[in-house]
Amino acid sequence: MPQASTRAHLAPPSPIRKLAPYADAAKAKGIDVIHLNIGQPDIEAPEEFWTALGAKRPKVLEYSHSAGNPTLRAKARASYKAQLGVELNDSELMVTTAGSEALVFAMMACLNPGDEIIIPEPFYANYLGFAVLAGVTVVPITTYLDQDFALPSIEAFEEKITPRTKAILICNPSNPTGTIYSAAQLHALAEVVRKHDLYLMADEVYREFNYTSEPVLSVLQLPGLEQNAVMVDSVSKRFSLCGARLGFLVSKNAEVMSGALRFGQARLSPPALAQIGVEGALEAGPDYFDQVRGEYRARRDRLVQRLSEIPGAKCPKIDGAFYATVRLPIDDGDKFCQWLLEEFSHEGATVMVSPASGFYATPGLGKDEVRFAYVLEEGRLDRAMDCLKVALQVYPGAKVAAGS
Amino acid sequence: MPQASTRAHLAPPSPIRKLAPYADAAKAKGIDVIHLNIGQPDIEAPEEFWTALGAKRPKVLEYSHSAGNPTLRAKARASYKAQLGVELNDSELMVTTAGSEALVFAMMACLNPGDEIIIPEPFYANYLGFAVLAGVTVVPITTYLDQDFALPSIEAFEEKITPRTKAILICNPSNPTGTIYSAAQLHALAEVVRKHDLYLMADEVYREFNYTSEPVLSVLQLPGLEQNAVMVDSVSKRFSLCGARLGFLVSKNAEVMSGALRFGQARLSPPALAQIGVEGALEAGPDYFDQVRGEYRARRDRLVQRLSEIPGAKCPKIDGAFYATVRLPIDDGDKFCQWLLEEFSHEGATVMVSPASGFYATPGLGKDEVRFAYVLEEGRLDRAMDCLKVALQVYPGAKVAAGS
Repeated sequence: MPQASTRAHLAPPSPIRKLAPYADAAKAKGIDVIHLNIGQPDIEAPEEFWTALGAKRPKVLEYSHSAGNPTLRAKARASYKAQLGVELNDSELMVTTAGSEALVFAMMACLNPGDEIIIPEPFYANYLGFAVLAGVTVVPITTYLDQDFALPSIEAFEEKITPRTKAILICNPSNPTGTIYSAAQLHALAEVVRKHDLYLMADEVYREFNYTSEPVLSVLQLPGLEQNAVMVDSVSKRFSLCGARLGFLVSKNAEVMSGALRFGQARLSPPALAQIGVEGALEAGPDYFDQVRGEYRARRDRLVQRLSEIPGAKCPKIDGAFYATVRLPIDDGDKFCQWLLEEFSHEGATVMVSPASGFYATPGLGKDEVRFAYVLEEGRLDRAMDCLKVALQVYPGAKVAAGS
Repeated sequence: MPQASTRAHLAPPSPIRKLAPYADAAKAKGIDVIHLNIGQPDIEAPEEFWTALGAKRPKVLEYSHSAGNPTLRAKARASYKAQLGVELNDSELMVTTAGSEALVFAMMACLNPGDEIIIPEPFYANYLGFAVLAGVTVVPITTYLDQDFALPSIEAFEEKITPRTKAILICNPSNPTGTIYSAAQLHALAEVVRKHDLYLMADEVYREFNYTSEPVLSVLQLPGLEQNAVMVDSVSKRFSLCGARLGFLVSKNAEVMSGALRFGQARLSPPALAQIGVEGALEAGPDYFDQVRGEYRARRDRLVQRLSEIPGAKCPKIDGAFYATVRLPIDDGDKFCQWLLEEFSHEGATVMVSPASGFYATPGLGKDEVRFAYVLEEGRLDRAMDCLKVALQVYPGAKVAAGS
């Protein structure tokens, strides 16, 4: 039997999904498992998506252009112009099979195998999987709950830079922390990037999920960084279209976009049906986002309030996306999250959250932290938090005395 | 400005699409460009695809399981059982974002960077692009038009095998030649694979396009090769759903499938809408394929007949898929194909075909060959062949005297 490749062995299983068998077992016992473990929103996509899809049934479902339908690309460019004030030409934006493919193409086009990419941790765990596919080395730089997961200082970044460093990747607003990086932090980061001539990749798929009064600064807006900035976007969260698998790769670096386009030609085209629908979704007005944002802000507020009632829990400032990485009075997040599914229920229900350890690349970090994805309506969220509160009173590894 | 990666430079542009600007220019002059250059069929998908899609509008378009919806996987497994007599368990089949992703995952899971994969040439040009992404080296083994592009002998394969050889990849029925490999050829190949403990990957996306009375043998059916065989499939051609971007990766090798699944978890899920529709399409009865096959057989027959009327043209036996790689009395296929678009028209039309050189990895081969994709109805096909016939009478690089 031939041996599978090294990367087949190295590719990490999804930390978000590894507890799934325990959740299935709990459900089989009749327990209502409330999912706060995965960023799968319960919000509906804009009606314009379905209208566009219903209105246009192509006679033959053909390959599209490898960079995506020209009409969709034009609308996407116009939306960045309107939203960010960034002018893009035709070759500076490419439609991808979701943000995932945009990230893979970005890493593949920017980094050689063995090159290093610095990523603030905790980070979206699948970055590790993409790095394995691209053969690049992830160098984590730790951010801290007690500092609201702020971007590290210039000096801290410079300590991580080696001759093999080729890129820094941020997620802003951040999954898994909900942090929005300030303009000052981003300008400092830009200085490092310019000084060391690195790529600055930004996963900005949560841009619209901003509960502050300040706009989220895109890497495309950082002056003097036009050739360094590579932006990844997706409709999965923006329009609640996770299953559509449609995203965008945007950069003014012609070499990067030319390479990505040739990678894209090999895989022929992004999904055609989603492209038709998303062209409609891009017509959704500010009302749609206002409503969605309002809903999530209320959920965020509820989560923060409920966490404040739990002795020993610490929730940092969460300004965006729909995640929070929170300290709980527990011995070990992995054990706790599994225990919630295997051993615990409260009034017929339990809550599923993700151990934060899976979002840190440095072993041992985040042991007493868990990630919440507050993607459910307030009633469900409340029920989940009721479960959590009771669970922490009876969990054998709890660090605070029950009832305190 | 940071430098793009080596693979960004190495990734080849699509040879199928590189003439597109000349075609656009011809169209802008009002010329009717008849496309026989790309495997984009004009056939409609089974109605069951659209019915299933219309019947099931999910409230939220969610991520699916990373291996695809369980109901879709069950139906796909049942179809392989019925069609090939191959029993598959749940972990031996994975839904992918088209055959393209299945090929990338297969290469990534089976080969390490620097490993070699032997591929009979001429081959589907995008294999080169996938190999660049995976960092693997393509070693071509030449097949010959004058031998009907038969699989090379065991000895010829063994001459190509080195300590770095890890896999052989075939396409059966073949794009770009239309060849169907005989059972004898495949059993001989299996012997080489077993002896050297290689992976045998097969791109079988044209399985249904078989104009002979013998079934196409799948690599999944080769005895004793269960741990070596990796099969790639797609609905793009089978159901004329190129834009759906849905395929399958199938293997009984647990390590390979486990690695592929973890790659798949990183990219979360294949497209949801296509999965819904394809579950319907899999219900399409034999009538659908009989009709499609009948249509393509008639087109194949027409192409062969019209080529037989062209002095100096040589068409090998074409038994399957919807391609033919044909020798024409020309100096250079690249020049000729470009000339057809730039300089030629006949009664307001011209024909677009692909230079075969782009399907050979060995420089200099296929210079007087072009690939036809006979994906248009007979009227259009006839018009294209009228153009070709006249073109060869006036083309400055023609090797046969005009009118002979």
